[in-house]
Amino acid sequence: MLQNETNLSITRFQNGELWETDDTIVTEFPITIKLNQEEFATLVCTPEYLEDLVIGFLASEHVIKSYSDIENLWIEEGRGFAHVSVKNIHLLNDQFRSKRYITSCCGMSRQGFYFVNDALTVKKVGHIKMSLTPAECIEMMDNLQQEAETFKRTGGVHNAALCDKTGMQLLRMDIGRHNALDKLFGHCLKNSIPTDDKILVFSGRISSEILIKASKMGCSVILSKSAPTELAIELANKLGITTVGFIRNESFNIYTNDWRISDTKEPELS
Amino acid sequence: MLQNETNLSITRFQNGELWETDDTIVTEFPITIKLNQEEFATLVCTPEYLEDLVIGFLASEHVIKSYSDIENLWIEEGRGFAHVSVKNIHLLNDQFRSKRYITSCCGMSRQGFYFVNDALTVKKVGHIKMSLTPAECIEMMDNLQQEAETFKRTGGVHNAALCDKTGMQLLRMDIGRHNALDKLFGHCLKNSIPTDDKILVFSGRISSEILIKASKMGCSVILSKSAPTELAIELANKLGITTVGFIRNESFNIYTNDWRISDTKEPELS
Repeated sequence: MLQNETNLSITRFQNGELWETDDTIVTEFPITIKLNQEEFATLVCTPEYLEDLVIGFLASEHVIKSYSDIENLWIEEGRGFAHVSVKNIHLLNDQFRSKRYITSCCGMSRQGFYFVNDALTVKKVGHIKMSLTPAECIEMMDNLQQEAETFKRTGGVHNAALCDKTGMQLLRMDIGRHNALDKLFGHCLKNSIPTDDKILVFSGRISSEILIKASKMGCSVILSKSAPTELAIELANKLGITTVGFIRNESFNIYTNDWRISDTKEPELS
Repeated sequence: MLQNETNLSITRFQNGELWETDDTIVTEFPITIKLNQEEFATLVCTPEYLEDLVIGFLASEHVIKSYSDIENLWIEEGRGFAHVSVKNIHLLNDQFRSKRYITSCCGMSRQGFYFVNDALTVKKVGHIKMSLTPAECIEMMDNLQQEAETFKRTGGVHNAALCDKTGMQLLRMDIGRHNALDKLFGHCLKNSIPTDDKILVFSGRISSEILIKASKMGCSVILSKSAPTELAIELANKLGITTVGFIRNESFNIYTNDWRISDTKEPELS
């Protein structure tokens, strides 16, 4: 059984003195995906929900379009391999994986997507009519932080959750920022749970890569404790995603598509 | 001229109200390395010291062994390309890049390195007789944080510095954890500055990837504000690196090779 954390003896310096003590250390587990017997990618992750991680990663990389494209998947924990057979393997992948996407426009880099695959697989969500009050944004982030046990113990992981108006539906953590999202995505694909009606709540910075992953899940709102980057904001504008960052101390910033966040309460039925 | 940060108008929620304001946002710049005219890798980075970043990355990936292996290097800022010609291109790269490294031992993953390239290119530093007092560790981290201006403004970057007993010699920041290290490495290679007599001071978590990069620079001590992972600790033990983490409030933890940190002061010459 793989562990997410372990205890090790360390040397502590405090109050001017050095002494021996124990500390809880977060695990890092490399898992290599063999896709139809070829080495495809190595992810360094927190070793739980490995199957979900692999499914989510393959969907996000556009190798599979749905869970049913996977014929067989088994995790060889001992050596750190995921063996996956996929039917209808998406040819897009071979041609374009990690290949730079350049639009015809000249001058400064303003193309947004930097990989061809991403440009072809992101989803526009501008039409999704999600609506949140400021209090709901703050509450969802509070819930994420209250639930994030491993983070509290080791300080070393990122947390991501899918929420809706009734509360937190799924929470995953990982030392790798993207992995936490892939674990959510994989679980939902496997269990036919829609993601495009959920809000993504994330502990880390909204980089372009995180934004793109969220977009592939069809999420129209991302809430983060941290800041987005300029490129993520640009992409969020293009894709119609609402990005809310720096949710701390009863305050936050809305960077894009602020029309989904409103302090006008919906009329209560009497 | 590329910018590291930019001002954007945002919607702020504070004290129960929403209003328009400005905020400083960190930039994210994708740069694709074309190596002898072939697309090699895309790094998403803070767009400063791009040449150093490319040199450091290629050295860390074992594509070049020294700066003189580079025949030509130019940065095409507008489209985000680095065009590099390299002589004596290291064949190791073609064969093994990102290929999983598996030792003959069975059972649980305890091989440490997960890429063949890394296993072949890391440096053991157990013989390096660096010695630091606790006060010096704390001072070096304080200096890093005082100098880290962009971090203070945007909260969105990692900082890394090379220090010696006389102080901080080189500081670089990047939104990408690894990039900050590659920028340090590239600068030192280009200017024939040794790195194996320096201490690496880093704002982020010591993951296995950070540990491996530090090892390739020959650094025998890593100081971090954050925690190492278990795999990083394992590698640090194997390679003879001293890892010091959670340097905060006049205290810290030593995870490996604590013999280099001692509160026994060297005798002063009178």
